[in-house]
Amino acid sequence: MKMRSLLDEIRIIVGPAGLITSPHEFAPYATDWRKRYVGKPLAVVRPASTAEVARVVRTCSEARTAIVPQGGNTGLCGAATPDASGSQIVLNLSRMNRLRGIDARNNTMTVEAGCVLANLQKAAEEAGRLLPLSLAAEGSCEIGGNLSTNAGGTAVLRYGNARELVLGLEVVLPSGEIWDGLRGLRKDNTGYDLKQLFIGAEGTLGVITAAVLKLFPLPKSRATAVVALQNPEKALTLLDRALGACGERLTGFELFSDFCLSLVLKHFKDAAAPFPRRFPHYVLMELSDTQPGEGARTLAESVLEAALEEEVILDAAVAQSETQARAFWSLREFISEAQAHEGPNIKHDVSIPIARIAEFISATDAELARAHPGVRMVTFGHLGDGNLHYNVSPPEGTAPDVFANESAPINRIVHDSVARFGGSISAEHGLGQLKREEIRRYKSPLELELMLKIKRALDPYGIMNPGKVL
Amino acid sequence: MKMRSLLDEIRIIVGPAGLITSPHEFAPYATDWRKRYVGKPLAVVRPASTAEVARVVRTCSEARTAIVPQGGNTGLCGAATPDASGSQIVLNLSRMNRLRGIDARNNTMTVEAGCVLANLQKAAEEAGRLLPLSLAAEGSCEIGGNLSTNAGGTAVLRYGNARELVLGLEVVLPSGEIWDGLRGLRKDNTGYDLKQLFIGAEGTLGVITAAVLKLFPLPKSRATAVVALQNPEKALTLLDRALGACGERLTGFELFSDFCLSLVLKHFKDAAAPFPRRFPHYVLMELSDTQPGEGARTLAESVLEAALEEEVILDAAVAQSETQARAFWSLREFISEAQAHEGPNIKHDVSIPIARIAEFISATDAELARAHPGVRMVTFGHLGDGNLHYNVSPPEGTAPDVFANESAPINRIVHDSVARFGGSISAEHGLGQLKREEIRRYKSPLELELMLKIKRALDPYGIMNPGKVL
Repeated sequence: MKMRSLLDEIRIIVGPAGLITSPHEFAPYATDWRKRYVGKPLAVVRPASTAEVARVVRTCSEARTAIVPQGGNTGLCGAATPDASGSQIVLNLSRMNRLRGIDARNNTMTVEAGCVLANLQKAAEEAGRLLPLSLAAEGSCEIGGNLSTNAGGTAVLRYGNARELVLGLEVVLPSGEIWDGLRGLRKDNTGYDLKQLFIGAEGTLGVITAAVLKLFPLPKSRATAVVALQNPEKALTLLDRALGACGERLTGFELFSDFCLSLVLKHFKDAAAPFPRRFPHYVLMELSDTQPGEGARTLAESVLEAALEEEVILDAAVAQSETQARAFWSLREFISEAQAHEGPNIKHDVSIPIARIAEFISATDAELARAHPGVRMVTFGHLGDGNLHYNVSPPEGTAPDVFANESAPINRIVHDSVARFGGSISAEHGLGQLKREEIRRYKSPLELELMLKIKRALDPYGIMNPGKVL
Repeated sequence: MKMRSLLDEIRIIVGPAGLITSPHEFAPYATDWRKRYVGKPLAVVRPASTAEVARVVRTCSEARTAIVPQGGNTGLCGAATPDASGSQIVLNLSRMNRLRGIDARNNTMTVEAGCVLANLQKAAEEAGRLLPLSLAAEGSCEIGGNLSTNAGGTAVLRYGNARELVLGLEVVLPSGEIWDGLRGLRKDNTGYDLKQLFIGAEGTLGVITAAVLKLFPLPKSRATAVVALQNPEKALTLLDRALGACGERLTGFELFSDFCLSLVLKHFKDAAAPFPRRFPHYVLMELSDTQPGEGARTLAESVLEAALEEEVILDAAVAQSETQARAFWSLREFISEAQAHEGPNIKHDVSIPIARIAEFISATDAELARAHPGVRMVTFGHLGDGNLHYNVSPPEGTAPDVFANESAPINRIVHDSVARFGGSISAEHGLGQLKREEIRRYKSPLELELMLKIKRALDPYGIMNPGKVL
């Protein structure tokens, strides 16, 4: 099949509204969110139904043409960006955005891949339920992408990663066949749990077209606090106590350093420091409860008072209103953007066994300071999950392009340290193309070979998102 | 390699203490827990370390000799029982029973496959943590088997199936290679989540030798209630309300019919009826809280009072002591044994989308009554998970062997009904050999083919537990 006839075939399947072939219109689909990769697709295909996806994939499979699945295109590792060969099809799922149904009593919703996460959160809330997946890009990321990258975010501590929220999947396989695994069951032990293969596979094993997601009771009260601490070790002690006392009421536990806070205060004029004086580290702690009233706040206060008395923490402020709670959260949420305003930086998305995080931070900080004097550490993240965004900003006054050259040696120091501490070099962002080579240094050849065996078994022609993950 | 030399090789690996070749000693390893299958192994091998397992598997792989992994041998579908050919090796993991470590601050424990579940629960509790996996066989089942069957049990509502409790695995692959995936991370998105393949695979893809399990804060208070209801529909309404009000404090929600209660009262002389009069159905409801004191009990009482007022429930008794709470639980837990005392019965382990369970029960009850007049339904199970043990006892006076002949048509009625309601014919027990043929009626050929592709990719010689699952 010639290229021309492939696109003609696809046009027949998806109609003119579903096919973009003009390079002038490629930009939003050909570049990743961080503008790190610029690809050149053969075409962008926007199917409107599972049947259309299946026919497009089958057509591409017959032509041995590579497919790059794409959702809201907010990924951070370039998994949804085509290469520059001009030979890959971007399969954008955004038109598949129907909420197929909510079953409140079953605590499930059935959604298509192109649904924007925030819209699904809202639909769940209108049905009196919580869809707990929550992350910075929620206003534009799409659930198919969230599942394909096994997204994390701020609610993992209590509700797990995206993977834990999935009961069923519908997937178009590399052959173009549709696997209907859209079950809404809490328990199903009838063979291999195939959906697990596609979650987190970043589109290399098939195209997720729909999913059944778990919903939860809507919290009826919340307590949000900013806590000041001497160091991350103290934060771990507080985490241990908060978990022990609050159990699953503990829905947020985010660490950030005073340097993170200073960047937010510098670049966001509306942001307010939580305390009259500054402290070395902070924790944003949130409790949620299905019971209304003051229970969550009283519990938060009692945990923090005891911690203060025993000098685990230095100070604490419990939000007195929803507005103040949002202001506290924004201190944490604005860090990424504030750091971007400050200039280029070298980002890491790592996880470490929780008990060893403090040790990891001090050992790696020291090593970086020795090898790259003056670098400024922007250390923050989901401490409750052992997940740090351990970012490195250049010494003040360094030219951006000079610092960019140091990313390889800095990555090496950070990731080698992560490996020594038994951690992961990609906690919640995936591998995509960004860390595809890097992971070979840290994963055993046996594990890489197992992954390849799965890949070859499901996608023998290698048409699904080549050049990503593996 | 001749058979003789295979066993000689294995003896060199595991030593005389690790090899049983005398048929007189085979019995405990060659028969399943329900005595449904009697196999005849070539030998029973009991390795004491991962290295020994690896060498045994490699030796068997080279000889193309089939391996049947086995833990506590308490499985309900015959997955751990060899066939009668005399050519299969039973690989019993019970000697691999070391607790490799508990990391309380990371909320994890690292355990070997042969650890008895109850011992692990106890070790976690001694470290101030909860290992929530809990099921009838916990005194003798082993964690490797629990993970290989993705065991369910009574705590799934709150803590998930065995799968959800696993952070990392160590697996001996069919080649005899050791995959070290023993990570203790909450987040790790560096490629395919391989551990998911081995969980619930019933030993057909490799041998789980060790695991990192999640631990949770220890509850400090509990409330246990027996609730009387008119019908399962009302139980669903109560579940909805209890979840909405109690959220994750709701740790148990078990349904049983009055006939179940009558069997328990008949066969367990110490069992006491929870109410002065009898009602059509009951729910065993449990709340747990990390906060000490009366909070859980007060909350349970307020939920039940409101439900009584609005005629969702007919009566309720909240346990006034730990002793009474245990007595309430035993009413639920003794059902299986009571039914066994009553004579043979036809068991089903099904799940249904929760919202449709009541409808499923009445439709299937009616169909069975039409086709098999006089059958007595022993309906109970984990309603909070949509999981019913929907068992059928013969009409009174039926000879056991006569009723046994009706198992195929009765299974057909029940499982066809499950399929119509979008359910699963094996919620928590797996397929093993018992449901290996049955599942072909209900799973799509595409899904079966996907499973086969995975099997062939990982176990090309088909030596891992042949005749099970697939």
